[in-house]
Amino acid sequence: MRNIKLVLAYDGTCYAGWQRQKGQPTIQELVEAAIAALTREKVILHGAGRTDAGVHAEGMVANFHSRTGIPLAGLVKALNNGLPPDIRVLSAENVANDFHARYNARGKCYEYSFIVAEIMPPLLLRYAAQVAMPLDLDAMEACLPLLVGSHDFTSFEASGSRESGRSEGKGAVRTIFTCRLQRAEEDADGICRLTIAGDGFLRHMVRNIVGTLFAVGTGRIAPHEFAGILAARNRAQAGATAPARGLKLKEVFYE
Amino acid sequence: MRNIKLVLAYDGTCYAGWQRQKGQPTIQELVEAAIAALTREKVILHGAGRTDAGVHAEGMVANFHSRTGIPLAGLVKALNNGLPPDIRVLSAENVANDFHARYNARGKCYEYSFIVAEIMPPLLLRYAAQVAMPLDLDAMEACLPLLVGSHDFTSFEASGSRESGRSEGKGAVRTIFTCRLQRAEEDADGICRLTIAGDGFLRHMVRNIVGTLFAVGTGRIAPHEFAGILAARNRAQAGATAPARGLKLKEVFYE
Repeated sequence: MRNIKLVLAYDGTCYAGWQRQKGQPTIQELVEAAIAALTREKVILHGAGRTDAGVHAEGMVANFHSRTGIPLAGLVKALNNGLPPDIRVLSAENVANDFHARYNARGKCYEYSFIVAEIMPPLLLRYAAQVAMPLDLDAMEACLPLLVGSHDFTSFEASGSRESGRSEGKGAVRTIFTCRLQRAEEDADGICRLTIAGDGFLRHMVRNIVGTLFAVGTGRIAPHEFAGILAARNRAQAGATAPARGLKLKEVFYE
Repeated sequence: MRNIKLVLAYDGTCYAGWQRQKGQPTIQELVEAAIAALTREKVILHGAGRTDAGVHAEGMVANFHSRTGIPLAGLVKALNNGLPPDIRVLSAENVANDFHARYNARGKCYEYSFIVAEIMPPLLLRYAAQVAMPLDLDAMEACLPLLVGSHDFTSFEASGSRESGRSEGKGAVRTIFTCRLQRAEEDADGICRLTIAGDGFLRHMVRNIVGTLFAVGTGRIAPHEFAGILAARNRAQAGATAPARGLKLKEVFYE
């Protein structure tokens, strides 16, 4: 039995997210179907995480067990032939039998793209959020060091997730390795990018952090209040959930 | 009677191009309909040019005559409310009565985006062409100075355009002001961009130039043959038409 690790990229615009759901198009379902069509086996594809509806990925990782003898390069080509062009298998690798894309993941890196503009440029519509008011990027940047390190991120967790999605018994404590903001001037398309890497993320955590940073940027929340919001462990104190289309899973880290 | 100049941006993916066509969604038709709904006048919107199906724009210019008293800022907002989000009016301006977006244009700037990759990244699918073979960018770049200046560009004109689309009696002679290639290393997304500005462009001219440059890059045409292809005034000697999705009208120049 082989254990095959895939790295995947997708445009999440037309999908109800990663995870299989009855009656909705999802990435997991389509990739599992492409594998099944190729190998004639019913497989379960284990993703490193679940991206929400509309969220994109440049480096999602997943694994599945199979008896197929197809060489790796042929597998990548054949799977891509069976998938719509907005989902691509970037690479395939044979891994140890006990490798699991989710349990073995040591961390993930996300990027959130946004643009400050009164009129949303049509060519950025799918891949960036729009903020129509001026943003104080210095104030937003001042909050970023507060996120780094190990914290209970309940304030930034989607409400109602406590019983359902929480994994591995670590509660709501997550460790953020780095968090930085690249400003529009450094980008050809005028996009600001928030990059955040950590050992794991709660449901909607990145989008809730970004939504709260937007509230700081527009002055609704003062930068000195940000630490208090994090410490409060209370979703009601943080800002709104930023739109899914700005979010992209860049990379999943393994040892 | 006012003469109003608009600057427009659009994602051409879902449209049959700029120009009104029976039974097909076009940019011109939708913007004319938005103007009519707002002003209660039937207007003709004169575009600076016609972008083909699938071609994008960041700075298309168009004008229309109207008796409306709506101030410019309100006009921009109201038109955008009436348009789908993949078409945006960026600005409006009152101009002299004899201004005509096409006849007064002194030039245009286009950008063609492409990526050299075996697997097309899903997030670039709408806005860049894919070249799956390695490209000799030095060889391609060596051809660019040959394009600059005034030339008869028949070799790069869509076949069958001679009788139909040719305007203003200048035949197939056009003047290219600048033509440069920005390499993938200089771009965050790994996109190569060919920027070309000139006083006018024949039908499919940029895409045929790019298709021919791809043939140079992959070695099917030698760089020294490029001048001969241009001089031949024969469409059959040049390369294929590069895909529409890589092309973007960046700007229209006026005096």
